[in-house]
Amino acid sequence: MAAERYNLIVLGGGPGGYTAALTAARHKARVALVEAQAIGGTCLHWGCIPVKSLLHSAPTLDSPTPGGDWGTHWKASQKRMREQVSALMQGLTKTLKQAGVALVEGKGYVASPNSVRVGGALLETDAIILATGSKPATIPAAGLGDESSSLENWVVGNSNDFLSLDDLPKSLLIVGAGAIGCEFADLMKRYGVEVCLAEMLPQILPHFDMQIAQTLSRSFKKRGIEVRTGTGLNGITPDRSGVLATFQDGSSFSTDRVLVAVGRKPRIEDEVIAGVNIEISDGAVVVNEHFQTSVPNLFAVGDMIGGAYLLAHAAEAQGEHAALTALGMTTSGKSRSTMLIPACVYTEPEVATVGLSRDQAKAKGLECVEGKAYYLANGRAVATEQAEGVAKVVAQSKTGQVIGVHICGAFATELIAAATLAMNLNGTVADMAGTVWAHPTCSEVLKQAALSCLDQLK
Amino acid sequence: MAAERYNLIVLGGGPGGYTAALTAARHKARVALVEAQAIGGTCLHWGCIPVKSLLHSAPTLDSPTPGGDWGTHWKASQKRMREQVSALMQGLTKTLKQAGVALVEGKGYVASPNSVRVGGALLETDAIILATGSKPATIPAAGLGDESSSLENWVVGNSNDFLSLDDLPKSLLIVGAGAIGCEFADLMKRYGVEVCLAEMLPQILPHFDMQIAQTLSRSFKKRGIEVRTGTGLNGITPDRSGVLATFQDGSSFSTDRVLVAVGRKPRIEDEVIAGVNIEISDGAVVVNEHFQTSVPNLFAVGDMIGGAYLLAHAAEAQGEHAALTALGMTTSGKSRSTMLIPACVYTEPEVATVGLSRDQAKAKGLECVEGKAYYLANGRAVATEQAEGVAKVVAQSKTGQVIGVHICGAFATELIAAATLAMNLNGTVADMAGTVWAHPTCSEVLKQAALSCLDQLK
Repeated sequence: MAAERYNLIVLGGGPGGYTAALTAARHKARVALVEAQAIGGTCLHWGCIPVKSLLHSAPTLDSPTPGGDWGTHWKASQKRMREQVSALMQGLTKTLKQAGVALVEGKGYVASPNSVRVGGALLETDAIILATGSKPATIPAAGLGDESSSLENWVVGNSNDFLSLDDLPKSLLIVGAGAIGCEFADLMKRYGVEVCLAEMLPQILPHFDMQIAQTLSRSFKKRGIEVRTGTGLNGITPDRSGVLATFQDGSSFSTDRVLVAVGRKPRIEDEVIAGVNIEISDGAVVVNEHFQTSVPNLFAVGDMIGGAYLLAHAAEAQGEHAALTALGMTTSGKSRSTMLIPACVYTEPEVATVGLSRDQAKAKGLECVEGKAYYLANGRAVATEQAEGVAKVVAQSKTGQVIGVHICGAFATELIAAATLAMNLNGTVADMAGTVWAHPTCSEVLKQAALSCLDQLK
Repeated sequence: MAAERYNLIVLGGGPGGYTAALTAARHKARVALVEAQAIGGTCLHWGCIPVKSLLHSAPTLDSPTPGGDWGTHWKASQKRMREQVSALMQGLTKTLKQAGVALVEGKGYVASPNSVRVGGALLETDAIILATGSKPATIPAAGLGDESSSLENWVVGNSNDFLSLDDLPKSLLIVGAGAIGCEFADLMKRYGVEVCLAEMLPQILPHFDMQIAQTLSRSFKKRGIEVRTGTGLNGITPDRSGVLATFQDGSSFSTDRVLVAVGRKPRIEDEVIAGVNIEISDGAVVVNEHFQTSVPNLFAVGDMIGGAYLLAHAAEAQGEHAALTALGMTTSGKSRSTMLIPACVYTEPEVATVGLSRDQAKAKGLECVEGKAYYLANGRAVATEQAEGVAKVVAQSKTGQVIGVHICGAFATELIAAATLAMNLNGTVADMAGTVWAHPTCSEVLKQAALSCLDQLK
């Protein structure tokens, strides 16, 4: 069988991989996308999309007390979720095919810097992009293991396990209060599950602005979610109804099930990269500003290169940049260290952030001001009973340039786009305040926060 | 009684007036705000806020068939609306007082270019801003009159009347399919009312991009709202159950009630401005780029100066600009003809627009491209069952500069902020496409539409 020759072969069909492939195809390159499982990756099958679907389908906050039929409701929601994922996957597959991307089913192995083996075929290529993603991380605590989720009657699981959960537990301990932990806490509480959300670090959403995290934490507590911060899990032991979790501060929690949501780690399989000698550090592939590994023409993007946020849209942006670089094209987009990556949490209220918090800016020696605005004074927020929340804008003192925006409140995840775009355009708080924001919209909180910055800059 | 002396007196406590007053107070001016009725104006009491509240409270689209208790539901929604309006008014009043604005209750009359009479007092001032708003417009059709709404058992009313409607009608004819007409059609249909939405011009939302308007129209029709475009109302005559409306194309509609929603017209009372000689044209106060009338130091903002859109946020921006100009300050904000004013419609799906449509750009002789993206391919839209909709970006062919954004779909009214801000910052489609948009958000449709423009510019 004659070897095929591509300009680019991408390993992994998640957001990083399929965006790289589409970008290359858009520029008329001959490109193959190799995926062993389903196109769409963790984002479409195990992450962003399924969780958003379940959150959307879940009982609303003001629903009556959960009755006996929440289990049926849950199963219907899971079914709808699977249908939506399937529809999106079909759409994505069609888009890739229409763009001219060769979809290769199977597991790809990098045979050399210029060839990839899939099954019995050897595909030749000018360049390779690795985008093999990540898997749920684990923590060293007694009673928790990587393999627990494979038990038939599992008690401890990760987010993957919980998506296909058959029966709703009565109680649930969530270990780790990052985005995934917070979203599952919100989701399960809506189904009447008793939820304890535990975070080793001093605040939930440890990477986020403190006040923003506190706003969500307060809301969670009001809704009856137990929030424990600043204490790590010691371990779990079986008890009458499930397990007893004990914490480093001596407290404990008796629960049906445990969700370990302590982040994700790069998925790097030795045999996949055995044919090349690429640098790995701290379990992640080392890349430069343009996502090139230590091997010429071999790139890596997405979760497998690590970083503070393992996010689908970061992978997409990296995939696009890497594809253009691999094709020898210059890109107008920013490179690794200058890319502005927003981060979102789809709880109620929603949370979104981009750029630096005031504390982070100060730690970098930047003189700055922070303007705030509360949703309570926002017409749409009040009229739609979503008046809980705050928006913060951080700007450089000398120039007024916006260097961070942080929101906890209605539509936060959609509003962060305005902030990211303005920051990419080097916008100032005067630009934000001088823009006409449609009334009544929640987006007006950003104008008010910018005005508050302006008042401090006078 | 000694006359008081202000730097600025503002007549009218709606968005234009209170923003002018707050802006002046923020710059340490001595300012009075004169209002005969309640602070907040049409927007807070009769427009934006009450309608958004009722839309939020209304039965959702997938509610079961309306039963006998929709009337109770409607009354509860009206009560909640009044409470929210009251809370917002109290907040606004507090904000004005804290800022140092003197709130003067009563009807203000301009006695001279430098004095305003309220009750028995004569207030002296360096400058005056008129912001007395607008009132619902009427149309010349047989059986419709200005006064009909004062009848005890009224059949024909305007949007003000409908907010305090006691009983839901079985059927409703809405004359005029602008933002108000469309929002009431959406609202009433949710309560099981048989709705006919009639528009004299060829499309609903006549000022909007045609495809955007068609997207909403299609959605309305799917939900059973009857949409009649391109035919004017001849008149109405009483019939057995209410009235029979006849149209210029010979068709008719038998209905309980008629909502006249043909826009609004400036509220200019001769006696209010009798003390000065300002220029009026087509029923609107004539102003220059800085909202100055023909009389020095006398300004006018908001609905009373007319224009294509009578919108709260336009009034706010004008009020801010006029206040700064009145105080002799230069403003970094844009002036009348260069202000970018977004416009929103809070139907389901939502509609929002800013800048030029492709047709408008072409009519101005601008070479441009139009990029589109459909919600159907958007992960969040699918996962949250809001996959109906389209986003369009219009960009200049030579520079790629964004000159218009038009959206019909989920979160459109919140997403338009990103577009407006980017356009104010002279952003291009390359800037939009080069920005990292959080995934999964509906905002990503704007990135996709920008990418579609880029493909056409290659």
